[in-house]
Amino acid sequence: MAELLKVSRGAEFFYLGDTARVPYGIRSTETVRRYALECALFLKEFGIDTLVVACNTASARAVDYLREKLPELEIFEVITPAVERVVREATASVGVIGTPSTVGSGVYKREILKRRKDLEVLQRATPLLVPLVEEGLLEGEITDAVLRHYLSPWVGRIDTLLLGCTHYPLLEGAIRKLFPSWRVVNSAKPLAEFLKGKFNGEGENRVHLFFTDRSAFLERFLASVRLNGALKEPEIVSL
Amino acid sequence: MAELLKVSRGAEFFYLGDTARVPYGIRSTETVRRYALECALFLKEFGIDTLVVACNTASARAVDYLREKLPELEIFEVITPAVERVVREATASVGVIGTPSTVGSGVYKREILKRRKDLEVLQRATPLLVPLVEEGLLEGEITDAVLRHYLSPWVGRIDTLLLGCTHYPLLEGAIRKLFPSWRVVNSAKPLAEFLKGKFNGEGENRVHLFFTDRSAFLERFLASVRLNGALKEPEIVSL
Repeated sequence: MAELLKVSRGAEFFYLGDTARVPYGIRSTETVRRYALECALFLKEFGIDTLVVACNTASARAVDYLREKLPELEIFEVITPAVERVVREATASVGVIGTPSTVGSGVYKREILKRRKDLEVLQRATPLLVPLVEEGLLEGEITDAVLRHYLSPWVGRIDTLLLGCTHYPLLEGAIRKLFPSWRVVNSAKPLAEFLKGKFNGEGENRVHLFFTDRSAFLERFLASVRLNGALKEPEIVSL
Repeated sequence: MAELLKVSRGAEFFYLGDTARVPYGIRSTETVRRYALECALFLKEFGIDTLVVACNTASARAVDYLREKLPELEIFEVITPAVERVVREATASVGVIGTPSTVGSGVYKREILKRRKDLEVLQRATPLLVPLVEEGLLEGEITDAVLRHYLSPWVGRIDTLLLGCTHYPLLEGAIRKLFPSWRVVNSAKPLAEFLKGKFNGEGENRVHLFFTDRSAFLERFLASVRLNGALKEPEIVSL
């Protein structure tokens, strides 16, 4: 949302965070699809014509299903733009980290190899990173121990690390400190670049925030994004 | 469930694991209550007369609400039996760990001090422990780093550690290794002791398992509990 706002003008955004049922990345495909459809139907009530699925797990598991169920919406996902950035930048070997569901889908590996057969793609599910971020542990002993556990085996093996989850950019500082030689790509910026000029109207952007639970993470999240003038008070809704 | 089976005979159990919406411990009280009521209403359809809330967060946040909404059920929770064990065994100072919701409720501290004003009670929310257990990281570098992060400040300050979450007993080995001088109390065994003889019929116990999602954690869980003859194949249900 933050990245999208930077490249949009005069647009009206309806943002829904399903905080009552996070994390999606540990759930089955059936459940991710059901939840994603419920979210999409909620947003559709506002008369939207475009849906941006800003979650890697839902992008990996539910976008085809959403397009089939809601053919009237133009639906974007976060995977394709990140893949296109990676195949432009990677030298020889790419590491992809994500939730168990995203990594289990194999979508990043498949899409990268479809575009560049010369690249080697390594994948790893890193399920502790979302809880780390949600607890605000963005640096320190635990964070370093967890990151080393997941990523040290790739030292000397990859040149580019793809952060395949919308939570992971918050750990980018810690990752760069521990693994300074890697190129790090996240999915938010490539998506915003991809959608640059798409929402190009008159005046200020308007943002309506909805969440399904007022969790502690939401409180921390709001405390940080309130700095951004475009964001308003959220509404808590039940799906 | 495993502990209850050991102290029951000829009883029929309907077990529901809300795997599609875990973890409860990071959610608001309103959401925990709503989810707990949905679970209870699902189980009530089977004609149960007793409900055991085998989750510390739901016990801390939703039991009074469930008793008000479902006065026809006899409802047990996991907190009181654990508190009674602790006040029998603790010497001077007790540390309580649990989810953010359980610890935020203050229920353990309140109930312990109600019974023994001489005890000092320290509390700490340890939200990474559920994800650690769900990923099967029960020992090793990460587990030790996380446990040290949360618990090292209590070395020399407490004599008894209360594991206020049903996931934590799986980390008991790692905790005892790092902090060998502490008495460790979990909530499953005291609850089973409390309910000993309550379900005392003829023949074998029967267990019907229901889950709301077939997650990877569920697969691992089933692989371990299948060893127990009383447990059958689970059914996946939507609430």
